Amino acid sequence: SRVGYPEVIYCSGKTAEQVKAILEAMLERDSNILATRVSLELFEEIREICPDALYSPLARVVAIKRKKVEVPSSYIAVVTAGTSDLPVAEEAALTAELFGNRVERIVDVGVAGVHRLFANLEAIRGARVVIVVAGMEGALPSLVGGLVDKPVIAVPTSVGYGASFHGLSALLAMLNSCSSGVCVVNIDNGYGAGYIASMINQL
Amino acid sequence: SRVGYPEVIYCSGKTAEQVKAILEAMLERDSNILATRVSLELFEEIREICPDALYSPLARVVAIKRKKVEVPSSYIAVVTAGTSDLPVAEEAALTAELFGNRVERIVDVGVAGVHRLFANLEAIRGARVVIVVAGMEGALPSLVGGLVDKPVIAVPTSVGYGASFHGLSALLAMLNSCSSGVCVVNIDNGYGAGYIASMINQL
Amino acid sequence: SRVGYPEVIYCSGKTAEQVKAILEAMLERDSNILATRVSLELFEEIREICPDALYSPLARVVAIKRKKVEVPSSYIAVVTAGTSDLPVAEEAALTAELFGNRVERIVDVGVAGVHRLFANLEAIRGARVVIVVAGMEGALPSLVGGLVDKPVIAVPTSVGYGASFHGLSALLAMLNSCSSGVCVVNIDNGYGAGYIASMINQL
Amino acid sequence: SRVGYPEVIYCSGKTAEQVKAILEAMLERDSNILATRVSLELFEEIREICPDALYSPLARVVAIKRKKVEVPSSYIAVVTAGTSDLPVAEEAALTAELFGNRVERIVDVGVAGVHRLFANLEAIRGARVVIVVAGMEGALPSLVGGLVDKPVIAVPTSVGYGASFHGLSALLAMLNSCSSGVCVVNIDNGYGAGYIASMINQL
Amino acid sequence: SRVGYPEVIYCSGKTAEQVKAILEAMLERDSNILATRVSLELFEEIREICPDALYSPLARVVAIKRKKVEVPSSYIAVVTAGTSDLPVAEEAALTAELFGNRVERIVDVGVAGVHRLFANLEAIRGARVVIVVAGMEGALPSLVGGLVDKPVIAVPTSVGYGASFHGLSALLAMLNSCSSGVCVVNIDNGYGAGYIASMINQL
Amino acid sequence: SRVGYPEVIYCSGKTAEQVKAILEAMLERDSNILATRVSLELFEEIREICPDALYSPLARVVAIKRKKVEVPSSYIAVVTAGTSDLPVAEEAALTAELFGNRVERIVDVGVAGVHRLFANLEAIRGARVVIVVAGMEGALPSLVGGLVDKPVIAVPTSVGYGASFHGLSALLAMLNSCSSGVCVVNIDNGYGAGYIASMINQL
Amino acid sequence: SRVGYPEVIYCSGKTAEQVKAILEAMLERDSNILATRVSLELFEEIREICPDALYSPLARVVAIKRKKVEVPSSYIAVVTAGTSDLPVAEEAALTAELFGNRVERIVDVGVAGVHRLFANLEAIRGARVVIVVAGMEGALPSLVGGLVDKPVIAVPTSVGYGASFHGLSALLAMLNSCSSGVCVVNIDNGYGAGYIASMINQL
Amino acid sequence: SRVGYPEVIYCSGKTAEQVKAILEAMLERDSNILATRVSLELFEEIREICPDALYSPLARVVAIKRKKVEVPSSYIAVVTAGTSDLPVAEEAALTAELFGNRVERIVDVGVAGVHRLFANLEAIRGARVVIVVAGMEGALPSLVGGLVDKPVIAVPTSVGYGASFHGLSALLAMLNSCSSGVCVVNIDNGYGAGYIASMINQL
Ligand SMILES: Nc1ncnc2c1ncn2[C@@H]1O[C@H](COP(=O)(O)O)[C@@H](O)[C@H]1O
Ligand SMILES: Nc1ncnc2c1ncn2[C@@H]1O[C@H](COP(=O)(O)O)[C@@H](O)[C@H]1O
Ligand SMILES: Nc1ncnc2c1ncn2[C@@H]1O[C@H](COP(=O)(O)O)[C@@H](O)[C@H]1O
Ligand SMILES: Nc1ncnc2c1ncn2[C@@H]1O[C@H](COP(=O)(O)O)[C@@H](O)[C@H]1O
Ligand SMILES: [Mg+2]
Ligand SMILES: [Mg+2]
Ligand SMILES: [Mg+2]
Ligand SMILES: [Mg+2]
Ligand SMILES: [Mg+2]
Ligand SMILES: [Mg+2]
Ligand SMILES: [Mg+2]
Ligand SMILES: [Mg+2]
Repeated sequence: SRVGYPEVIYCSGKTAEQVKAILEAMLERDSNILATRVSLELFEEIREICPDALYSPLARVVAIKRKKVEVPSSYIAVVTAGTSDLPVAEEAALTAELFGNRVERIVDVGVAGVHRLFANLEAIRGARVVIVVAGMEGALPSLVGGLVDKPVIAVPTSVGYGASFHGLSALLAMLNSCSSGVCVVNIDNGYGAGYIASMINQL
Repeated sequence: SRVGYPEVIYCSGKTAEQVKAILEAMLERDSNILATRVSLELFEEIREICPDALYSPLARVVAIKRKKVEVPSSYIAVVTAGTSDLPVAEEAALTAELFGNRVERIVDVGVAGVHRLFANLEAIRGARVVIVVAGMEGALPSLVGGLVDKPVIAVPTSVGYGASFHGLSALLAMLNSCSSGVCVVNIDNGYGAGYIASMINQL
Repeated sequence: SRVGYPEVIYCSGKTAEQVKAILEAMLERDSNILATRVSLELFEEIREICPDALYSPLARVVAIKRKKVEVPSSYIAVVTAGTSDLPVAEEAALTAELFGNRVERIVDVGVAGVHRLFANLEAIRGARVVIVVAGMEGALPSLVGGLVDKPVIAVPTSVGYGASFHGLSALLAMLNSCSSGVCVVNIDNGYGAGYIASMINQL
Repeated sequence: SRVGYPEVIYCSGKTAEQVKAILEAMLERDSNILATRVSLELFEEIREICPDALYSPLARVVAIKRKKVEVPSSYIAVVTAGTSDLPVAEEAALTAELFGNRVERIVDVGVAGVHRLFANLEAIRGARVVIVVAGMEGALPSLVGGLVDKPVIAVPTSVGYGASFHGLSALLAMLNSCSSGVCVVNIDNGYGAGYIASMINQL
Repeated sequence: SRVGYPEVIYCSGKTAEQVKAILEAMLERDSNILATRVSLELFEEIREICPDALYSPLARVVAIKRKKVEVPSSYIAVVTAGTSDLPVAEEAALTAELFGNRVERIVDVGVAGVHRLFANLEAIRGARVVIVVAGMEGALPSLVGGLVDKPVIAVPTSVGYGASFHGLSALLAMLNSCSSGVCVVNIDNGYGAGYIASMINQL
Repeated sequence: SRVGYPEVIYCSGKTAEQVKAILEAMLERDSNILATRVSLELFEEIREICPDALYSPLARVVAIKRKKVEVPSSYIAVVTAGTSDLPVAEEAALTAELFGNRVERIVDVGVAGVHRLFANLEAIRGARVVIVVAGMEGALPSLVGGLVDKPVIAVPTSVGYGASFHGLSALLAMLNSCSSGVCVVNIDNGYGAGYIASMINQL
Repeated sequence: SRVGYPEVIYCSGKTAEQVKAILEAMLERDSNILATRVSLELFEEIREICPDALYSPLARVVAIKRKKVEVPSSYIAVVTAGTSDLPVAEEAALTAELFGNRVERIVDVGVAGVHRLFANLEAIRGARVVIVVAGMEGALPSLVGGLVDKPVIAVPTSVGYGASFHGLSALLAMLNSCSSGVCVVNIDNGYGAGYIASMINQL
Repeated sequence: SRVGYPEVIYCSGKTAEQVKAILEAMLERDSNILATRVSLELFEEIREICPDALYSPLARVVAIKRKKVEVPSSYIAVVTAGTSDLPVAEEAALTAELFGNRVERIVDVGVAGVHRLFANLEAIRGARVVIVVAGMEGALPSLVGGLVDKPVIAVPTSVGYGASFHGLSALLAMLNSCSSGVCVVNIDNGYGAGYIASMINQL
């Protein structure tokens, strides 16, 4: 794959020992590294073997930058419905950045207060590809898809309660979007959205 | 109940004989009558015993008007996302009208083309209560709820395919609405929405 | 929106820091404030920056009253099937009160002991709008709907076990109510029920 | 099993040939026979080999009576929420009768019009065991269970649409009944309810 | 209800204070009392106000016996598929006993080792009504139902993992039993099974 | 693959033209051929291009035998719970036979009448691998698995109604079997069971 | 939108009259037109008002070409697991072509015969974006995603039976893909996949 | 059963006391013993009564070897998609070994990096029966099934998040495998896979 592209570790369900072993092999290859689903405790263990590791407690992501990546001038917009969607959105944004993309964050523009979306429309329309992160009723990707002429990557989140069924409601809504140009990744899969958006932005 | 309020027959799963027997008893009481889920064949049998029965093939509703009902000056808005949602919307609208309400219909203003919604916002905001009918991702009630300061009755429809799961997707989205002031009735239940909207409009 | 209407914070999934930041901005605007899904710990932090904040440990709701709200003479009935449904019912009642409504609470009148419901029927029938809160089989809204000529807002709760599936059983029952005039909000959504009931009571 | 107890054929998914072959063997044994899920066409074929076969087009049940069965003086009440539940209720009632029981039918006493239930309470309370048949929200067994001191066999029906999910809503409601003394059989399983009620009535 | 019949408290989701308040009112009426879903901590608080309270840590049930109940000579069999089903079975058995019934326990006779069932068949066949408790594939009630001529109350348990979906697998299996004479209560509802079995045993 | 092994066509969702084109290519290779999910109409078209094609209307299977296959002396038992499971069982049996296996059919030995199973136990225990086909509660594979020391291939069928949910109930039961030595194929997948049983029989 | 971009009609659930009215308005604007979910009967009515309309009976798509669209030199690969997935794949391919793209079709390369996939790998790797269409277990997009460095649009189809649950199995598999760079559209939504692939190809 | 075959305890949901009582009875019979779902704490209690007990913290399995078992020369391959699937795979492998089989482990060969699978194909093809363990999209068994001519036992794991629904996604994928020769056990049921693979390997 591309020069400077990071190697990735998905840490959920791995012991600190397993993660550090994988990491050490990667560090030997002098790769850029992205680790996702990293708890604060795990990060502290990682920092011991890699003091330049950076950590986002919001996104629960670790980034290790060893090599320069080329960054195209076009950018990816990461649009968030509510503040509870921020961890997933930030996982997406940091992934996209580490893979060599400029990212524009537009937060808290859910359909319940649609004027805020319109106030940010120019920034969204200027992107080459748009990631839209939303929980509960998952309506935002359809709305954005109708307003923007670019590919929309919809990310359902598990934000909500009751009949949100841990993200199922948002997932189904996004799959049934009546706007053309919307595709969907797994519930809470910020990484996956950031990765495919990066791919598209770098075509 | 109120003077002039119609009696109602839900015809699904009843034989023509059963429907006509119920109808004849009602006609004897000289009631206004609303029959829902009426096929054309059934209507033809109804017309034989009641020549002044009116039929909407779109809504599959029969209305029989024998008594005047008082109609308040405020109105109910019935808002529809797509053209395929029209049968359910019309069941709601005709129900509301037969129960003595003025109804304003606003059709085809789904979130994929949100400018059409804004073009109709005044008519929606002028209503005392708003019925919003949508299938697929069921996003419209949230959007309307955020723009309007009146109770919103959300009606999910079974319009869609695949992961719409016969209206489940729209239903879940509406239950998880992040807009305050939205409540929900059963999938395809235009009648129920029209009834409760009428109740609210006549408080 | 209306004079004196509270601003609302949904605290679930927000850090104390996030909640307090939002709160401080609201306090600056001198708004009435409703905060829902507030743990005792969070309330203690809130009290430090806002000593007149009131807390209901049952409803897990914080109310801050700075401005008078006009209260209509009609009232909202909040009807509860069992004692385990009280937290959700109280979230609804306190929401309605803070939004400027008189509330009548009728508790523990579930269908298993229907005489208790009949003993309270007058109080329920006197309301302008009725909120009915029930878990398990969710049968109470149908029964109330058949006895009362006012809009019924049904709130399913996650009370139950086994095949209650965390409120799904009650939710489905309420959506399928054979009584006219019943609409439904999300599982455990006392706030949403209180809000729309307030809207209807103040039409 | 007991003297005079019928042999049973469940005809769904069997060809007329298969049904007639089974029937002929039974007739040779001179048994009383109950056949369920019998279409009119199938009945016509049955009548050819067994002219004294009786058919209920409502219940889709065939009864062939060759031997006397002893009938206890106590009776089974079969209670129905709506008219669309009649086919299932009648399958239960005819099963119970053919197995040697007196049956009292109480129809159309669903929770939306609870006065009709109270008007029939004496007949229900007089039974030794009560079968309650209901679709949609399936609330009636809970209500009856709370009013009656006898075992209640609840039969959910597939009557309804949308979120009734072909009887799932009624089934879940009945399983979650907050009334003690209620147990449940499969959706639309009138036969099963009639059988176990007969067992209990003849203890 | 019958002389000596216990009053019942379902303690799940109630605070110790709520439980004790209810209990004290009952003790004043000198009732027999059954409390279910009681943790050890809760029992210790109960014992302080009621030193003669008995506790089963297996069934998590408290029994307080103040009055004699008449016990018929017939008995209820409580049959268990595996050892993990014992808590639910014991809730059923203790309920039945406190309501005035003799109970015969037959444990660990699941379908995987069917010879153990046959070794106990006489004890099961001698009962007036049979409770069968099983998790995982929930096959035992069908097998017992085919071997026994008495009403079978099937209790699915949440025992299992993976595709048992917390008791759903066992529940569905029991509802679809091909044996006549089987009815079903909620997942893990030992109390409900014991109650209705008692009702039947005392007819 | 092995000499004489048939080529297979799965005909569901293919036009007669598509099936015949595939078939002609296979016939040119002089293969043995198995076609599944074949309607009578389709078979009639097949017979025109291949007069020696054999058809089982029960299994909806076409077999074309051009080459001899070696058949081991051990055999596969195909065990069926009810008569409605026969089509799926026969798809399994015919598949196994065409792939070169002796098959012993044991029908109608479901758990409701367990004596019939015991009467056939020797034939089942003599097999090298056992296919068990059952719908509704899907209990038979667990029972057989407990009685037999050989691999059991469980095939859930869509036979049933209501809470059988088109085979889901049987599928879940089989996956949760408490008997060791049971594995499961898709609902109604007689072909798949016959194929893997053949593989095992020919090891 | 772009010059020459077609207008689109989704014909499912619309009457011939509705479709023709929409079409006539579009024809007046001299647009290129894509109509999806068109039955043969509907096409025949369309042809009467538009004799140059082209129809694909496989994809059930009508194309009307009035204006030239610019076509980039890069191409879209449409990859299909089985022959039954062809209708959905062809809806995708024809959509992409009418929106001005070169399309390379690679059919019948499902995971059961992975050598066929490898034989076509060059053609897939040469594309700018890849659409992968699969039913049943929906495994192909993961495999392709691991072999190709381009965005993969995964389309689950409703092909299958039993536990495929009308495409749910394939949908879930695709959402859970362990390959990076895969996003998903609704079950059977060839149109949506073709549209977003076109968007990406024309960035 | 066979000489030297271990007795098995499934420890989940049993107290240490229950486990030790069962164990002591087995030790008296001098059996080989396999205990699954054993926590470290439980193991420490077991070691006190049985110092030669071996424990795998990865598989959470205890093995006690007292008697020699005959081991055939053929082997079972245990193939794993990802590292998070190792605990389940190891439960399968240790089960198979204790039941007297040689096991070849092939780890981390999931479909996202298919070259690793091909690099290990010889080892897989050399086995008499293959166990394939995978979570998330569960695609690996289909791929292996297409490449290998031996029975494949597919084990879905609960590895994943969001729409993996605790292993449901992988389970459905495996049930719908388009490769012949694949059968499935319960989610995370390493033991069951090891047991049936052992049965097949020792035929
Ligand atoms: N409507 C019904 N629903 C469920 N089970 C039934 C029904 N009617 C008959 N049965 C059962 O089906 C058995 C006969 O099944 P079969 O041998 O397939 O005809 C009877 O003994 C009953 O246990
Ligand atoms: N384990 C149990 N599961 C289900 N219902 C129960 C259980 N124990 C008691 N009940 C029911 O709960 C009622 C008491 O409920 P409550 O008034 O909330 O304490 C009793 O009368 C029983 O009907
Ligand atoms: N009844 C069936 N159910 C599931 N799979 C089948 C069935 N019959 C045949 N197959 C499989 O379908 C393959 C042929 O599929 P196709 O190439 O689409 O005709 C065969 O090689 C079998 O693996
Ligand atoms: N096969 C399809 N599946 C999903 N959406 C479609 C399909 N075909 C067309 N559409 C969408 O439906 C819109 C037209 O819908 P309508 O206005 O109802 O005709 C188009 O703009 C597309 O966004
Ligand atoms: Mg767009
Ligand atoms: Mg609003
Ligand atoms: Mg009412
Ligand atoms: Mg009762
Ligand atoms: Mg029996
Ligand atoms: Mg066995
Ligand atoms: Mg890739
Ligand atoms: Mg293979």
